[in-house]
Amino acid sequence: MTTGVANAEDGYDLWLRYGQPGAAAISVPQSSPTLAVAAAELRRGLPRASHPIVLERATAPEVSALGLKLGTLGGEGYAVRQVRLAGRAVTLVTGNSDVAILYGAFALIRHAHTGGSVDTATLTSAPRIKLRMLDHWDNLDGSIERGYAGQSLWDWWTLPDFRDPRYVDYARANASIGINGTVLNNVNAKPDSLTAPYIAKAAALADIFRPYGIKVYLSARFSAPIEIGGLKTADPLDPQVAAWWKAKADEIYRAIPDFGGFLVKANSEGQPGPRDYHRSHADGANMMAAAVAPHGGIIMWRAFVYAETNAEDRAKQAYSEFKPLDGTFANNVILQVKNGAIDFQPREPFHPLFGAMPKTPLMMEFQITKEYLGFATHLAYLAPLFKETLDSDTYERGPGSTVARVIDGSIEGHKLTGIAGVANIGRDRDWSGSTFNQANWYAFGRLAWDPSLSSEGIAREWAEQTLGTDPKVVDTSVAMMQGSREAVVDYMTPLGLAHQMSTSGHYGPAPWIADLKRPEWNPVYYNRADAKGIGFDRTATGSDAVSQYAPPLAKIFADPTLTPERDLLWFHHVAWDRKMASGRTLWAELIAHYDRGIAYVTGMRARWDGLKPLVDAERWQKTATYLAIQEREARWWRDASLAYWMSLNHLPLPAGEAAPEHDLDWYKGQTFPFAPGQGK
Amino acid sequence: MTTGVANAEDGYDLWLRYGQPGAAAISVPQSSPTLAVAAAELRRGLPRASHPIVLERATAPEVSALGLKLGTLGGEGYAVRQVRLAGRAVTLVTGNSDVAILYGAFALIRHAHTGGSVDTATLTSAPRIKLRMLDHWDNLDGSIERGYAGQSLWDWWTLPDFRDPRYVDYARANASIGINGTVLNNVNAKPDSLTAPYIAKAAALADIFRPYGIKVYLSARFSAPIEIGGLKTADPLDPQVAAWWKAKADEIYRAIPDFGGFLVKANSEGQPGPRDYHRSHADGANMMAAAVAPHGGIIMWRAFVYAETNAEDRAKQAYSEFKPLDGTFANNVILQVKNGAIDFQPREPFHPLFGAMPKTPLMMEFQITKEYLGFATHLAYLAPLFKETLDSDTYERGPGSTVARVIDGSIEGHKLTGIAGVANIGRDRDWSGSTFNQANWYAFGRLAWDPSLSSEGIAREWAEQTLGTDPKVVDTSVAMMQGSREAVVDYMTPLGLAHQMSTSGHYGPAPWIADLKRPEWNPVYYNRADAKGIGFDRTATGSDAVSQYAPPLAKIFADPTLTPERDLLWFHHVAWDRKMASGRTLWAELIAHYDRGIAYVTGMRARWDGLKPLVDAERWQKTATYLAIQEREARWWRDASLAYWMSLNHLPLPAGEAAPEHDLDWYKGQTFPFAPGQGK
Repeated sequence: MTTGVANAEDGYDLWLRYGQPGAAAISVPQSSPTLAVAAAELRRGLPRASHPIVLERATAPEVSALGLKLGTLGGEGYAVRQVRLAGRAVTLVTGNSDVAILYGAFALIRHAHTGGSVDTATLTSAPRIKLRMLDHWDNLDGSIERGYAGQSLWDWWTLPDFRDPRYVDYARANASIGINGTVLNNVNAKPDSLTAPYIAKAAALADIFRPYGIKVYLSARFSAPIEIGGLKTADPLDPQVAAWWKAKADEIYRAIPDFGGFLVKANSEGQPGPRDYHRSHADGANMMAAAVAPHGGIIMWRAFVYAETNAEDRAKQAYSEFKPLDGTFANNVILQVKNGAIDFQPREPFHPLFGAMPKTPLMMEFQITKEYLGFATHLAYLAPLFKETLDSDTYERGPGSTVARVIDGSIEGHKLTGIAGVANIGRDRDWSGSTFNQANWYAFGRLAWDPSLSSEGIAREWAEQTLGTDPKVVDTSVAMMQGSREAVVDYMTPLGLAHQMSTSGHYGPAPWIADLKRPEWNPVYYNRADAKGIGFDRTATGSDAVSQYAPPLAKIFADPTLTPERDLLWFHHVAWDRKMASGRTLWAELIAHYDRGIAYVTGMRARWDGLKPLVDAERWQKTATYLAIQEREARWWRDASLAYWMSLNHLPLPAGEAAPEHDLDWYKGQTFPFAPGQGK
Repeated sequence: MTTGVANAEDGYDLWLRYGQPGAAAISVPQSSPTLAVAAAELRRGLPRASHPIVLERATAPEVSALGLKLGTLGGEGYAVRQVRLAGRAVTLVTGNSDVAILYGAFALIRHAHTGGSVDTATLTSAPRIKLRMLDHWDNLDGSIERGYAGQSLWDWWTLPDFRDPRYVDYARANASIGINGTVLNNVNAKPDSLTAPYIAKAAALADIFRPYGIKVYLSARFSAPIEIGGLKTADPLDPQVAAWWKAKADEIYRAIPDFGGFLVKANSEGQPGPRDYHRSHADGANMMAAAVAPHGGIIMWRAFVYAETNAEDRAKQAYSEFKPLDGTFANNVILQVKNGAIDFQPREPFHPLFGAMPKTPLMMEFQITKEYLGFATHLAYLAPLFKETLDSDTYERGPGSTVARVIDGSIEGHKLTGIAGVANIGRDRDWSGSTFNQANWYAFGRLAWDPSLSSEGIAREWAEQTLGTDPKVVDTSVAMMQGSREAVVDYMTPLGLAHQMSTSGHYGPAPWIADLKRPEWNPVYYNRADAKGIGFDRTATGSDAVSQYAPPLAKIFADPTLTPERDLLWFHHVAWDRKMASGRTLWAELIAHYDRGIAYVTGMRARWDGLKPLVDAERWQKTATYLAIQEREARWWRDASLAYWMSLNHLPLPAGEAAPEHDLDWYKGQTFPFAPGQGK
């Protein structure tokens, strides 16, 4: 408790491990709550500085008199410059708003903790995306859907009275990476979150987050006018319904003047929505948008829909539903689209809606929490996944129309732009369930600020701040991280397979499951494996999902000889004996991927073992233990998958390949009713 | 995060706030895992010591040669003495076992941190009760039934692989107050907890706890032979069932050689049990006892039963069911009886089974978590509640047959003795949801060791260790604590009222509830309020529950003029205009109690405000916030209760009494579907 080294290194400090403060002299000519926290942060976090640090807006006379060439900082960009003010050499942190200066302060701290000198720092950066959001799938009872790091950080029960100091640390961590919005509650929303007591609770959090430039948003249940409003309908074209939402928005804005707006999951997985009244998603979104518009609020309307009654390929349904609505949304509506068309798999081709709705602002929804990637105990650095999607070319306006350029608005000139990450944050001491999971929160924030940053660069700066600057620690950690997500793809769902996880918990392999009520809930729906082959034919001979992509891409995805092998089984049903680029059959290639995934984890274990003398005992041991779990579970994935495929194809294993450790029935018998993350 | 004072004072250290270690020289001639942790604890926790500290068993030749008069230490008692060993003046910590020495080490640390000198310490103590248990109502999904301090401490998902350092701190805290057993899972048990994977998880915890003298126990679901054993029955007289439990016990003992045994909730609130097969509780308990007996295990069989089909006063049913079974239990069965006959109310008369089953060892079940006392946010120091029960005289063998002497076995010479507390521990940083809740964990452990300790003495030593030795801080804290539980009785359920809390959550007032399926789930069942009076007639003209007490007590409880006023409405239906000892009518007296309870909380707030300069900011602020919540809710209890009573008795309020703030319908409209502690 009090003494040991252990508790000093329990991960609570995240990447803000400041060590001894350097007693920098901080000057804030025009104070404000935001500049006060920026100054406090510099006092705590800046190791050494020869010159005083001055925090001042670029519009202040003495700063504008300097005639600095700051470029286009916009409202949130920052600049750090070495200048002379009133005859003194100072380090100036500036920008066009107080929060821009706060971002600059954090950038300067990051610079100092990643080997840079404060005294020579010249930094300039502005965010490319306006809304940089964390979506918390946190329930009002404290559980978190797909959360693997303990209970919800929000102690709804003691709010608004008790303001846990941890809420401030949450805001600090987010501001340090540029996140400027947080959706407090699960998209599977309870109407209670819109009642007066919960508005007061959200307002308390908003008050705490405000100095850090973070706006609060709420997930809204579409049928709330019935459930808490006493109306008979939630029909978006009913004037009473519209009036109810308007009054509700007014009520919220009275408590939270800078409330961000609503996130809505409608007509998806059992949630109510405008389709219940034979209205379109645009009808629903626009009605709610009108309620928040007078206050400057927005509606983030999710495109993640698929219907029980719709036999169309699940991968196609969102596009089919939303593309015809392009151009019909109010200008304070932004459509929130998951990175892929299914659901946060280890790998998915980018969602075909990106590039297909030029007249509608689209925001990205990534999942930071690892619902389908082994939960908190598997090390999988997700920046490569995020980057893979962001860098994908949609061909919306010809080559170079990347997803990143769709969501940053640059292709079509949209001003309302956004990116959301489903948070991996809970009340566990280390916030995210493991040290390396913290890197995914960090990487999401950094990429939300600037999608052009590299995975490796982010990994490196994260490791330097989190694990120390010893080059062996940093190089080894970065090397482990960089291939880790591909390893998960390899040992879980290689070559374009998807959604092979067990039911409900989404934990562990279950490619054989075929008996769930809705066809698209079953792994067999996705693998379509049989005696002859495996994979989902999404070409014209199958579901024709390829036609939802721009013609240059559709042509590639329609042809198995052109489709990248990593996506092969996503788009094609392929014979087991098809020859792959390696010269191996598909069957042998599949096995090689499983093996490669396991080997990667084995390699991570060895690398991490080598860091034992260089990393504090507590974080080292937890990571080492988790890597051992991951290696065991990677083998389980391979063996269970092979046992099932072999029951269909009756093919022998290639020479030297170990048979699955158990028979298929054993794997089928593994059940995990208490898998975490199944909060209602 | 890193720097501020705040995180140094987040409550994690509990009462083990050692500060700077004193570098005492510790000598351990014969080492063992337990003595190693005792030595480590002294090195960390002992502030200053002139002499070396020697940890050695009383049976070691050099210790026995000293001819110390140690009294009857038994297996777990300790002695600390200033002696000369090999010519050196040393402080000797000794006992008849290693764990006894560990207890001595913690006693010496406590002595040093409560104003005592190490160099002159002469301490001797032995526990009066053998099994000193924490019962965790923790579910396998991480939720805790009636838990108000976050998720379960046990991360079942990552066990047995990951051994959270916090498990060690849990063991340290418990060992420091003499707790020697922990039931890991909820009495409403899932059969899964008895499967191989969960046995391995329990074994990992047992390995961690073993050096600290803490045995692991499991709650067992009576129907497990069906659910996980594949049998068609759980009939305790079926040889296959008995064989299944024997094999299961053998399996557990292979993994946990010192496994303590099973806790069983049978035929209670929907749990399966021997009555499902028309067998007695003794049949069930003895069958399971036979399974663990070869390994030295025990069965703790709960007496908390009441049946849906039984119209008898709920307060009578446990006695009716179990008393006839006295003398029929195997000798490794102990009957676990709640302190009162209903369910952990702010006040209950002691359970009539105490003193009524001389041939059966009875253990006490207290609730440390405050299910019915306002959850974590109400300050209620429970030692006075525990003491009130322990000091109650059962008259089992005439005057002086206190409950404490029933459960310590001294009245009937039982060797198997025990006391259990339902834990208030969760994964929240401060373990118990608030600083003062930690005192209830502490007080339970201290009273389990020695029921004769005083509430005030325990409060004082807890405060000195937890909040520092400043006399103003200690005196004020102790003064706040001492009356705090009576305040809860006053503002919630004065004068013998009970179970007036709202349904399911047990949070807030709901004396009007009358529509629940089972009569005894309704508050009106307990208050029986009507136009003429209030209270439950448990005399011969009513349920005659008084006859379950020994004659001298039965006579007192049968007579409203003899019954202590604090229990009046528990035993009697009393007219609103009855004159009380104060000269007031019952109606006025009831109101005076509500008011007194509120005033006490107001007083606590004022006292705590006075400590602001003397207590660290983080713990001070949280406590201050919680006291404000408590004061508001105390008023709510008064007002809601009065609104309901007045709807029945139509009596005016005494002069000067404020009317309820809202009308009765408003209070009835308050619902809290997300109240914590409702884990399945």
